Amino acid sequence: MKQNLEETTLQFKDRTDIQEIEEGHTLSPKFGADGLIPVVTTDYTTGEVLMLGYMNRAALKKTLLLKEAVYYSRSRKTLWHKGKESGFIQKVKEIRIDDDQDSLWLRVALTGASCHVGYRSCFFRSIPIDPLNLTPNNQITLKFEETEKVFDPTTVYKTPNPTQI
Amino acid sequence: MKQNLEETTLQFKDRTDIQEIEEGHTLSPKFGADGLIPVVTTDYTTGEVLMLGYMNRAALKKTLLLKEAVYYSRSRKTLWHKGKESGFIQKVKEIRIDDDQDSLWLRVALTGASCHVGYRSCFFRSIPIDPLNLTPNNQITLKFEETEKVFDPTTVYKTPNPTQI
Repeated sequence: MKQNLEETTLQFKDRTDIQEIEEGHTLSPKFGADGLIPVVTTDYTTGEVLMLGYMNRAALKKTLLLKEAVYYSRSRKTLWHKGKESGFIQKVKEIRIDDDQDSLWLRVALTGASCHVGYRSCFFRSIPIDPLNLTPNNQITLKFEETEKVFDPTTVYKTPNPTQI
Repeated sequence: MKQNLEETTLQFKDRTDIQEIEEGHTLSPKFGADGLIPVVTTDYTTGEVLMLGYMNRAALKKTLLLKEAVYYSRSRKTLWHKGKESGFIQKVKEIRIDDDQDSLWLRVALTGASCHVGYRSCFFRSIPIDPLNLTPNNQITLKFEETEKVFDPTTVYKTPNPTQI
């Protein structure tokens, strides 16, 4: 449905009452000391966790109005309309917020992939635990749960890899 | 499978090489400036997101060895073996880690609930966006997606509500 709303119109309720935050009917999100709230994003169809990102106040308002996921990139220090460069836009089907309103869950419809490495989910590796698979120096071995990339990041992206050590 | 391993045995690989972190086979998790890594926890059967928590190094090692979710409680500033007080233990069926290894995804088998307010998922409220439902002062209305509590927190918990404004 089309709503002619501006970001400046939308107001987040002040956090003053724990009972109201936890069991009330009004959005009063908690942005941390860094101004960010963590966001879990899952595939609306498969339920798979695609990524864990962050939003600041502006990113959340843009997401609510655009109905497409807009995050805040901590490495690039800027708003990040997911898929704007790769074409892999995340259409928001549902947004949930947790009890103390300090994290969000986005359920999105996705074409393509969500991981800048080329896999569908950013969580393409597991940590086998039964048993743990240790290297000779007691480091912990990972297992690939996705074996083929959905796209080739070297051809899709013009910008540098955002990952930081 | 029984493995006689101690927490002190397990080693996390140092983060020195982005290619190795993103596409390698060894666990080298990134703990933030606060010493924590965020953790998404989903129900192994339904796929539903139950909660978003945090682990420090000790909590992750305990989780890997115990195969039950152990978080770090930011409000209580202590390790938190989830369900130890309520009885609602989270049995870990699978652990995944994301591309840059700065967030974890736990898939757990759960009896009971995961939300200290009494609902099954902490994400028991949605933010309807199509259309946004605004109050007269342009605040954003939430909708309850779970309508009945699974348990009564006032009878289950002896400790105070951990939520902080």
